[in-house]
Amino acid sequence: MKLRLVSTLSLLCVLLGGPALAEEGLRDKAKGLFQPIPQNAPVLPGDTTAAEKTALGKMLFFDPRLSENQDLSCSLCHNPSMAGVSGQFLSSGRHGELGGRNVLTVFNAVFNASQYWDGRAAGLKEQVEASVMSSPAALLKTRGGPMAIPAAATASAKQHVIERLKTIPGYVDVFKKAFPDAADPVNYDNVARAIAQFEATLITPGAPFDRWLKGDDAALSPTQLQGLALFIGKGCAGCHNGVNLGGSGYARFGVVQSPSVDLLPPDDWGRAAVTKKVEDKYVFKIPNLRNVELTAPYFHSGSTDDLKEVVAVMASAQLGVALAPEEIASIEAFLKSLTGPAPEIVLPMLPPNPPRALAKPAN
Amino acid sequence: MKLRLVSTLSLLCVLLGGPALAEEGLRDKAKGLFQPIPQNAPVLPGDTTAAEKTALGKMLFFDPRLSENQDLSCSLCHNPSMAGVSGQFLSSGRHGELGGRNVLTVFNAVFNASQYWDGRAAGLKEQVEASVMSSPAALLKTRGGPMAIPAAATASAKQHVIERLKTIPGYVDVFKKAFPDAADPVNYDNVARAIAQFEATLITPGAPFDRWLKGDDAALSPTQLQGLALFIGKGCAGCHNGVNLGGSGYARFGVVQSPSVDLLPPDDWGRAAVTKKVEDKYVFKIPNLRNVELTAPYFHSGSTDDLKEVVAVMASAQLGVALAPEEIASIEAFLKSLTGPAPEIVLPMLPPNPPRALAKPAN
Repeated sequence: MKLRLVSTLSLLCVLLGGPALAEEGLRDKAKGLFQPIPQNAPVLPGDTTAAEKTALGKMLFFDPRLSENQDLSCSLCHNPSMAGVSGQFLSSGRHGELGGRNVLTVFNAVFNASQYWDGRAAGLKEQVEASVMSSPAALLKTRGGPMAIPAAATASAKQHVIERLKTIPGYVDVFKKAFPDAADPVNYDNVARAIAQFEATLITPGAPFDRWLKGDDAALSPTQLQGLALFIGKGCAGCHNGVNLGGSGYARFGVVQSPSVDLLPPDDWGRAAVTKKVEDKYVFKIPNLRNVELTAPYFHSGSTDDLKEVVAVMASAQLGVALAPEEIASIEAFLKSLTGPAPEIVLPMLPPNPPRALAKPAN
Repeated sequence: MKLRLVSTLSLLCVLLGGPALAEEGLRDKAKGLFQPIPQNAPVLPGDTTAAEKTALGKMLFFDPRLSENQDLSCSLCHNPSMAGVSGQFLSSGRHGELGGRNVLTVFNAVFNASQYWDGRAAGLKEQVEASVMSSPAALLKTRGGPMAIPAAATASAKQHVIERLKTIPGYVDVFKKAFPDAADPVNYDNVARAIAQFEATLITPGAPFDRWLKGDDAALSPTQLQGLALFIGKGCAGCHNGVNLGGSGYARFGVVQSPSVDLLPPDDWGRAAVTKKVEDKYVFKIPNLRNVELTAPYFHSGSTDDLKEVVAVMASAQLGVALAPEEIASIEAFLKSLTGPAPEIVLPMLPPNPPRALAKPAN
């Protein structure tokens, strides 16, 4: 394998005029396709209370009281200790009801053009709005526990979340600081806005690949450079490009060759359920590859936790290419260069409930 | 009420010789009963890798992979964002199965003489050992999900946890650093030791009451001082004393007057289940009152989240005393002076699974 690796590199060198030039040529190509993650989280221009919104959003992100039974927080599935995912095959409610798809990472999600595997939310704020509602209304519908309110329309479920937050004195003050111009700052729109603002800070600048893009030759190993050349040359970068190496468009899973039903369960039509167009059957959002070594299991179906298998399946299903084991290994090595330092998060302290905030269990 | 408060204070002053002397007399009495929380977490003398054990323990504390279905961590029920409790009436498994008792806080638990409501674990290490085992073996026994292994004897369940940790390369290194002298450091004993070491750092020195004990007159309000005088004078401090104002002994719930079955469900015999002695029926550990305003709901039965109700019930059930509403209010005000700054916790980053660490769901 080492011989073949060396010979492929040599070929690249010959084609591009020596090792240094080869790397420069590759870097120029890469710079046309990819951008490093910016050092600072994006904020709305002119927002003077962005820090206060972030602080509020962090509290809400970690607060289980946003869920119907007060026991499921955003952080449980989008776990910042686990690169923003749950490590589970499929998303799940607090009581084990499996959702339909694998959890997508919240890390760097701010750079995606849309959210969810089917792109049904345009931005983080819309994703938050929908996900908070899906906890009580959909995920938790199977359980009649302490806080299970009767199945409610979305509007009244939103009202329910807001009424609960308004009973917690510690929150009211923090909402006022985050939204000083609002007459009645504790509202559902602001809940989503604050969580989205916090989530926008969950970015991972400084990955080896980004350092290499910016000119640090030592940041990638020869194997990783070969992997990058293959990633571009074989066509992976046709879809996986931009800041997030994905996250910006859609593709049918199985463009060239249909994957097995394990990987592509026939009853999940993907984006077709959103657009109602038959040509969107089995079309999914191209996932973000940042920190991909940490975000297993993979595919919308969460059907494998082996990154090598993913590379092989993608090559055959999307590109009609059968990769050799050493090509797969070098592409995997390149993918590992997309892992950046995780954001440092100090756990927020949540304000306590007032008396009588919980309904007593029936037992 | 204000008048009566002032007159009670005046009476105290007369009895003890003026405001300053009254406070000094009260402080002397208090110093004989209570101790402030020490500034630094206790460590074993001569342990040169205490910091490494704490770092490992923090990872394990936040890692859902310690549970059978890889979705339940210590931090979920002993939530450091919520003063070390879950905010729920009763402890619960990952999938909503309610445990039998309210979750006790992990904050300052290191200063308790025993752990659990029935004192069945002597120290934090024993509590961790038992709790990790209770997740798969007891709490989660109702579910047959992705990772549900068949009900196993404790020994093989421990082995199962250790085998899983050994497959995660990132953990093996951290265990080696924490236990440099061990030939095979990844073992169940060390898991419990490391988590206990981390938990021992979850202390809250610097509460207003502690500052007052140390001489800061302004740290307690007149109402709080009156509450403290009542807390001592009415007999509460007979049980709730020491560093944690509790946590060091046992008492029957209903010494003088039996509380309602809501508060004392007749099927939970408390410590009798541990000691097998009939005289321990309805005997429970005297709970730690540190940060009590943040640790609702209350009682082993989690049957109320109203601290005023708790004070009234304790007075009548344990002491045979009917407190006036303003006495209850001032004792509650005193109890709120037991809230100390929460420990600052930076979320740990957890090492990723190797491929094939998860069994695929059956659906």
